[in-house]
Amino acid sequence: MPNKYDCIVIGGGVNGGSVAYNLAKRGKKVLLLEKDRLASKASGAAAGMLAAQAELEEDGPLFHLAKKSRSMFPVLAKEIKDLTGVDIELVNKGMYKVAFTEEEENRFKHVINLQTKAGEQAEWISREEVRRREPALSTAIRGAMYIEKDGQVAAPHMTFGFLKAAAVLGVEIREFTEVSAFLFDNGKIAGVRTSGGSFESDKVILTGGAWSESLLPDSEIHLNTYPVKGVCFSVVTHQPLLTGTIFSHSCYLVPKKGGRLLVGATVQPNTFDQTVTVDGISYLMEKAKTLVPDIVHAEWEKAWAGIRPQTSDGLPYLGEHPAYEGLYVATGHFRNGILLSPITGELIARLVDREPLAADLRAFRIDRHLERTL
Amino acid sequence: MPNKYDCIVIGGGVNGGSVAYNLAKRGKKVLLLEKDRLASKASGAAAGMLAAQAELEEDGPLFHLAKKSRSMFPVLAKEIKDLTGVDIELVNKGMYKVAFTEEEENRFKHVINLQTKAGEQAEWISREEVRRREPALSTAIRGAMYIEKDGQVAAPHMTFGFLKAAAVLGVEIREFTEVSAFLFDNGKIAGVRTSGGSFESDKVILTGGAWSESLLPDSEIHLNTYPVKGVCFSVVTHQPLLTGTIFSHSCYLVPKKGGRLLVGATVQPNTFDQTVTVDGISYLMEKAKTLVPDIVHAEWEKAWAGIRPQTSDGLPYLGEHPAYEGLYVATGHFRNGILLSPITGELIARLVDREPLAADLRAFRIDRHLERTL
Amino acid sequence: MPNKYDCIVIGGGVNGGSVAYNLAKRGKKVLLLEKDRLASKASGAAAGMLAAQAELEEDGPLFHLAKKSRSMFPVLAKEIKDLTGVDIELVNKGMYKVAFTEEEENRFKHVINLQTKAGEQAEWISREEVRRREPALSTAIRGAMYIEKDGQVAAPHMTFGFLKAAAVLGVEIREFTEVSAFLFDNGKIAGVRTSGGSFESDKVILTGGAWSESLLPDSEIHLNTYPVKGVCFSVVTHQPLLTGTIFSHSCYLVPKKGGRLLVGATVQPNTFDQTVTVDGISYLMEKAKTLVPDIVHAEWEKAWAGIRPQTSDGLPYLGEHPAYEGLYVATGHFRNGILLSPITGELIARLVDREPLAADLRAFRIDRHLERTL
Amino acid sequence: MPNKYDCIVIGGGVNGGSVAYNLAKRGKKVLLLEKDRLASKASGAAAGMLAAQAELEEDGPLFHLAKKSRSMFPVLAKEIKDLTGVDIELVNKGMYKVAFTEEEENRFKHVINLQTKAGEQAEWISREEVRRREPALSTAIRGAMYIEKDGQVAAPHMTFGFLKAAAVLGVEIREFTEVSAFLFDNGKIAGVRTSGGSFESDKVILTGGAWSESLLPDSEIHLNTYPVKGVCFSVVTHQPLLTGTIFSHSCYLVPKKGGRLLVGATVQPNTFDQTVTVDGISYLMEKAKTLVPDIVHAEWEKAWAGIRPQTSDGLPYLGEHPAYEGLYVATGHFRNGILLSPITGELIARLVDREPLAADLRAFRIDRHLERTL
Repeated sequence: MPNKYDCIVIGGGVNGGSVAYNLAKRGKKVLLLEKDRLASKASGAAAGMLAAQAELEEDGPLFHLAKKSRSMFPVLAKEIKDLTGVDIELVNKGMYKVAFTEEEENRFKHVINLQTKAGEQAEWISREEVRRREPALSTAIRGAMYIEKDGQVAAPHMTFGFLKAAAVLGVEIREFTEVSAFLFDNGKIAGVRTSGGSFESDKVILTGGAWSESLLPDSEIHLNTYPVKGVCFSVVTHQPLLTGTIFSHSCYLVPKKGGRLLVGATVQPNTFDQTVTVDGISYLMEKAKTLVPDIVHAEWEKAWAGIRPQTSDGLPYLGEHPAYEGLYVATGHFRNGILLSPITGELIARLVDREPLAADLRAFRIDRHLERTL
Repeated sequence: MPNKYDCIVIGGGVNGGSVAYNLAKRGKKVLLLEKDRLASKASGAAAGMLAAQAELEEDGPLFHLAKKSRSMFPVLAKEIKDLTGVDIELVNKGMYKVAFTEEEENRFKHVINLQTKAGEQAEWISREEVRRREPALSTAIRGAMYIEKDGQVAAPHMTFGFLKAAAVLGVEIREFTEVSAFLFDNGKIAGVRTSGGSFESDKVILTGGAWSESLLPDSEIHLNTYPVKGVCFSVVTHQPLLTGTIFSHSCYLVPKKGGRLLVGATVQPNTFDQTVTVDGISYLMEKAKTLVPDIVHAEWEKAWAGIRPQTSDGLPYLGEHPAYEGLYVATGHFRNGILLSPITGELIARLVDREPLAADLRAFRIDRHLERTL
Repeated sequence: MPNKYDCIVIGGGVNGGSVAYNLAKRGKKVLLLEKDRLASKASGAAAGMLAAQAELEEDGPLFHLAKKSRSMFPVLAKEIKDLTGVDIELVNKGMYKVAFTEEEENRFKHVINLQTKAGEQAEWISREEVRRREPALSTAIRGAMYIEKDGQVAAPHMTFGFLKAAAVLGVEIREFTEVSAFLFDNGKIAGVRTSGGSFESDKVILTGGAWSESLLPDSEIHLNTYPVKGVCFSVVTHQPLLTGTIFSHSCYLVPKKGGRLLVGATVQPNTFDQTVTVDGISYLMEKAKTLVPDIVHAEWEKAWAGIRPQTSDGLPYLGEHPAYEGLYVATGHFRNGILLSPITGELIARLVDREPLAADLRAFRIDRHLERTL
Repeated sequence: MPNKYDCIVIGGGVNGGSVAYNLAKRGKKVLLLEKDRLASKASGAAAGMLAAQAELEEDGPLFHLAKKSRSMFPVLAKEIKDLTGVDIELVNKGMYKVAFTEEEENRFKHVINLQTKAGEQAEWISREEVRRREPALSTAIRGAMYIEKDGQVAAPHMTFGFLKAAAVLGVEIREFTEVSAFLFDNGKIAGVRTSGGSFESDKVILTGGAWSESLLPDSEIHLNTYPVKGVCFSVVTHQPLLTGTIFSHSCYLVPKKGGRLLVGATVQPNTFDQTVTVDGISYLMEKAKTLVPDIVHAEWEKAWAGIRPQTSDGLPYLGEHPAYEGLYVATGHFRNGILLSPITGELIARLVDREPLAADLRAFRIDRHLERTL
């Protein structure tokens, strides 16, 4: 049966890549389908921050998932490099969540307190200490929450890394192949119909990012996701402006290899329009200047946008669809798609193999909104 | 009703542009929806040949449609230039359909005979005369069918020209907006549901090229189209290699402004994969060298591919869908999408306004395959 | 003599193209040398404004030269289109030099008065009238000096148009060919030594823009030019924001075909660094927003920079070098390189042929600074 | 003295980067000048092969230099990664120098014999063994000389890596800064005059690749270099076609990360023209198809060209200029610029510091051609 596979993964982004890679490691015959080019949507546009503690702050299931996933990067970096030659550019130089006001300082100190009690490293450092470590930062900064373990990767490299590693392990990748319908057999998934023909499998994993929801068949159990556009731009200097990653409430600065600095990202909900507009760039430029005044002398490189899937409760969807046996969903990762990709791939692979799971996935169930309204 | 329109056009290619432009000229409030970027598919990839006589050869409804459409370009060129500043780069320097074998020579002479009887200019010219006019052509050529009226345009400019002219006349254009379903009311079209919300209209025109068929709701009346990939490449010389367009059975050479020469196109059926592969370029290079040996010294510019919609009987679909009142379809133009765009826009606009049509459109009906099987 | 030419033109920009084109029209055997790619420096980066009256304001030799040159564009546009297919995108929709303050208003009215007396059209129009014609302009504008005849072209197209037209007329173009020395014979020019060998001619025309000065041999008569960097960016909307060109003291807005809008340009003297920096974009964005607030919603396209040659007295150099017979120089056009290119080509061609000149060129002599210091 | 430096390096390619990096490690205050952009010439265009044994074959001073340099890559890869985050993509999977004829087989076996006696690993492997390791290779191959230690790097990354590492260590980099003259003081070098002003130093190192010779002042001791153009192209597959590097007499295939395959390079002497022409691509495509038939299905990426400096005796120039104290030259590396860059940087740094040298540099002296003619 040439068109029959153990698993079919829909989506050529970072989570599709991670799922396919994990399934291939388990010896599955896997087909990965992408409607456009690999890494052409949110995964290729992301800044690559691994901001488990800086972004999520509060204890809870997502915080635990994020910390677990963050810890998986060093091993993955080596695996991907060995299999494909791709360097995911993992940087472990910490993250500075900077405060400009007394209110922010107090709030961050409170978070530090909570996280420290939960056993995580996090500390408040003074303006002088921040500027000693990162002299390019503005004197207007009061200080920062410093998180040693929150690093970053090159998001497009991470995405290609997973996908190419999957290919090396035998995953068949088809680009320009759009899924038009799921095939069912007695309520169980049986395959997909696509612009390139039909393919059979009793395990289909949907990792289509913001486009996932529209692919699902109508049912009373639907996803509550919405697209959120994010604009980024990048600049270059010969001598790097920063070494650590800077996180503020309005924008973040992520230093990449060779003196490149990535500035992101706007948060524009309810649009699939990937157009970069003047106001997006203008907003980010002003914010970046308040963080690192010398950025004005940096060389402009380019601007771009991505569309991220957000959910109504801010938690991703991870699990088997309760209405359709064999259909798994992984989407709704919003700004944490890169960070959560390692654990997403592993969890889905375990679900497919009916293995016991380390993490408690109830919070991420597809039908959780039904439960709440009962 | 902010989301209510007189007409909704689906597809931001050359035919969507022409339809929207014609409807706007008639005073309609029009919305044009494109799932990706404008002109990002076949229309932006086309060579722009207006090969009514060179391509179609035989008398018949498509030949008549093509000749009529070809005659509309000069006026359109002026209209588009005036409204938008876009020069469609209409070139009226004739087309040479070159023969390498006696068999080809005889066949072309037969076609010339037929076309002359039908009142069209077409003539056989000798190798010496061809090479006097186009000294870069190979001496291996036996002669050519010369067609004075078959010219060419810059396909991306033609496409943007229509679309931007439509915008100037008030058409609202939404990119990155994917249609997921048609809305119906008592069997009549009532609008569309898209990734950017729902829009209402009792006239919807589907001009989605090779992607049209998959958008239509399941019905016993479906389109018989299939995608055909075509690879092109372009080169540049300071002094132009050619003035007229060269058409052969295996490739064509289309001289563009400023010494650019476009070489097209492979014919690879049943794929939506827009990837340019080595064999496509290699094939075209060998063919181009047999036509114009000096092309080897030209500067390489780039290669690209487009996916064109072909039909089982080689005729486009133009008309109202017999099962759904108010839903019009214009697709299946294959290699003649640019050539047929002027008449396509005008015909659809007339259909929408229930006007009598000059051309007999029966051959292009949506349900013609049903008829034949009865 | 394969390496012997009637004339050698150094520089593949708009003025080199115009000179070569004019010489070729006179039947000369011409070689044009460009060290990099054609149109790769200031000519390809220019906004293309033909701001004879808006930019120069005051009566004088440059004003007269500019007006004469401006009048030559319509005929040239047709010639270039016919020879090469290139549309230079000449737009004759006038220029608005906008005033924000009473002081500007008074000054512009004074200039209008002077220009009107000199026989030129120029008029003051009120805020209401400006905004009636250009509704996207800010209400903060007090009014504008309106100049009917100051239009614009697409600078890269104008440059390629001249160069490709020259090629069609037989000019030999060599890119990647850097002049390292002039060859002399008894104080007269005899040719050039280049990275691609030596070429002979007793007429050499230097049109190297900001790089011209460094090519000239050491002599007591040297050019007083300096490079001035200018950063531009462009945006796109479906419906054009503007129809006329907007000129203010801090930036200009030039509407191009298909809804593209070009915003230029910073003025950064004494650097050859073509890098676009954040401050350049940020400055232009703020200025553009004060002129056309809705530009914030436009799609970002790209940013770039060019290096223009300015002179100490603000006048270009046009003429034969007093120390070296047969060596002609045309540089120092600063922001008027595109505008002055038609007259520059014609004047140099006349000088080469020892013809009487219509324009009095004394103000543009190479050794004028010597005269003044005497 | 703001414009005074310990050393000035001319050239922003791989050897300029290595020299600057080595000087900075020794604590020098270094200025690096590049007339265009960093890595914009041969270094950015190179395939990155480290073919010490495959390319050079014969024992001799260049062979020894190459082997020494090759051994330095692993340490440099780590240093550059640590300082800049740049992965030079060092691949140590060996090189296959493939034979198609008995004559080639015999010659390669002879070379293997010589190299083995000289203490180097090199072995003949049969067709079956070659194809077992590299199944994509053609069956027309008779066998291959396998060289374990000849690897490859990503040439643009190596170049940027050196340059950015130099910047991190304090080297000042100025792009768009063209040297117009050397400054001397009593026959010793005193600095340079550039398009961005004059800079003083009594140590100037010229690493201008094919452009070096034209910068040197006229003297009876001149370099005998000439430019050699090389065209390359690249393709991509999801699953890599090759793991090791393939070297044949007509082209080489270098597998890069993520399934990218680089095919190079033509050898076109005596031109600085960086244009990619159709014949260059066509030639390489045919050769690549005879090596790896399945390359026809690979996705086309792009083509480019670089200009490499070759010398009349095939050896680079490395040393102090005998006529000008303090002026050092490193050029003429031809196809081994990347391979020789580590040792070039170290040797020049030692020469500058008047240290004893491990390698005997007499064969690479600037004035060696004078010696021979005596």
